[in-house]
Amino acid sequence: MSNSENTKYVIGVDLGGTKILAAVIGESGEVISRAKKKTKPERPTEEILGRLVSVCREAVEASKLSFDQISGVGIGSPGPLDPEKGIVIETPNVNLTGAKITDFVSGELGIPAFLDNDVNVGTFGEFVYGAGKGCRHLVGIFMGTGIGGGVIVDGKLLHGFSYNAGELGHLKVRAFGAKCGCGDRGCLEAYASKTAMIKNFKKAVKKGKATILTELIGDNWNKLTSKVFRKAWDANDKLVINELERAAKLTGVAVGSLLDVLSPEKVIIGGGLVEALEEELLPIIRENAKKNCFPIISKDVEIVPAALGDDAGILGAAAIAWKRLKGEAVAV
Amino acid sequence: MSNSENTKYVIGVDLGGTKILAAVIGESGEVISRAKKKTKPERPTEEILGRLVSVCREAVEASKLSFDQISGVGIGSPGPLDPEKGIVIETPNVNLTGAKITDFVSGELGIPAFLDNDVNVGTFGEFVYGAGKGCRHLVGIFMGTGIGGGVIVDGKLLHGFSYNAGELGHLKVRAFGAKCGCGDRGCLEAYASKTAMIKNFKKAVKKGKATILTELIGDNWNKLTSKVFRKAWDANDKLVINELERAAKLTGVAVGSLLDVLSPEKVIIGGGLVEALEEELLPIIRENAKKNCFPIISKDVEIVPAALGDDAGILGAAAIAWKRLKGEAVAV
Repeated sequence: MSNSENTKYVIGVDLGGTKILAAVIGESGEVISRAKKKTKPERPTEEILGRLVSVCREAVEASKLSFDQISGVGIGSPGPLDPEKGIVIETPNVNLTGAKITDFVSGELGIPAFLDNDVNVGTFGEFVYGAGKGCRHLVGIFMGTGIGGGVIVDGKLLHGFSYNAGELGHLKVRAFGAKCGCGDRGCLEAYASKTAMIKNFKKAVKKGKATILTELIGDNWNKLTSKVFRKAWDANDKLVINELERAAKLTGVAVGSLLDVLSPEKVIIGGGLVEALEEELLPIIRENAKKNCFPIISKDVEIVPAALGDDAGILGAAAIAWKRLKGEAVAV
Repeated sequence: MSNSENTKYVIGVDLGGTKILAAVIGESGEVISRAKKKTKPERPTEEILGRLVSVCREAVEASKLSFDQISGVGIGSPGPLDPEKGIVIETPNVNLTGAKITDFVSGELGIPAFLDNDVNVGTFGEFVYGAGKGCRHLVGIFMGTGIGGGVIVDGKLLHGFSYNAGELGHLKVRAFGAKCGCGDRGCLEAYASKTAMIKNFKKAVKKGKATILTELIGDNWNKLTSKVFRKAWDANDKLVINELERAAKLTGVAVGSLLDVLSPEKVIIGGGLVEALEEELLPIIRENAKKNCFPIISKDVEIVPAALGDDAGILGAAAIAWKRLKGEAVAV
């Protein structure tokens, strides 16, 4: 501990639609302290950014470290965004469209700030500290309300020309198929996200189809958490099981396509749905991915569950801050 | 011309299923001389490799250069293959499975040899000398008998973990859909390749559907070249037009998916079908790509025809040789 006053830390921030998480994190990924606030996403942009800064300050306070020991802050935010300029381009669910996040945060805190989109950040967290440690080529897919993804090529996040590569939930698995929230048709997200499944459950219930869901959540579909999916599966609810199996099959097809295009070493599958039903869904995803990919590409690929859970966001944000502070490129 | 005896050149080789092309090429892409031989793909491996070496020698002879001025040879071959070891892993249509191409060629010619798969090489040719010049992120799709592709990320070919990334023809556009030659279902190639379309034409003709194809090629489907497609289109043949339009639409959907995943600056569409019907097919591909992609990703993307035609292979192979000779990485 002799050197502890000189040891440096960063803040990792996970800015979500309902809450903002911040943590003080060391270079090997150790979480020193945490803080949390509601996002209040409908409030004015300045207020949301103010809450973001104050949750950072709270995390530092809780760490008992001196602020001099904090070298920078990494932030994961919903996008699309411009990670180079640190600006949010558009966020339908949080009032941050056009917000110059990094300028604001580094102005307030007096340390460098770095920004990337939430799912990229989560994938980067798994790459540096989680299930993807040591891989050069990696794909992350996160199944929840929507389906997000991130791509690591040769150890760097793939941003591409628009800085917004890696929209893996919008891979078209059925050309001109089901309408997606993004406005297109046939996207994986239009079949395998919670939002898509709820749409189908509603239709089925309306048609008088029996399901334990009506018992578990009444007609309040907001209560349909991943845990409720788990309960319905355990109760052998056919409607829910069929829907989840279909979602897993189509996710497998999409993963197969991604293997053929990107040829990663590992595919990490995360998100609430997979956390709740890992043993049920992952084997179906694996089987259908292998079935939908060249054997030479799929043979040594591992399709594994995410390891960091909800901490992928803060840890990935911290990892980005660490690398950027050292002048290393984190993305191409 | 004072320095001409010291000027260096490389040989670019395009090893195809029916012919082997070789050319002596300067660093700015100038083709000094060419040679060509039949592949005779069913002959013993040693014989095919012998033909490859002798066509290289013929190209050098035709160039009137001294062999000392030839620094290396780049080779594009059907795959899958291991470009690092210079070994063909498998080629269903050419008897080269397991062939140590680069060892053999550099042993015979006494200069370094470099190998990559034919479609990667074509994409790299377009990237260095053709329609993709100056782009950092690029996708190439080539529509012919099959559908091949190549991906450039940050100026390098994407090989991925298996060295076989970029199998863009096997993106699934209709999960569990039409059977593909690769054994999977629903691949783009199962709808938009010449092979797939011929399958559908045969069925239609068998059902008694009228088409000018019977007049143009009788029942010899091997005669169904891209030029015949062109003629049938010009004759307003509904069967052919509908099939080509469907192929272009689904190619557009696949391009939209690829944009969402990779976010390139340009997509280059090449191959015999597109050369013969560029004005008819490209607008459909463009429209459907934009319709099937996030606007923020598609807005500045150009979807353009390939510029090098059949020379993409020899030029791409030469470009790989030039870069490798200088110790530059060409792939990740």
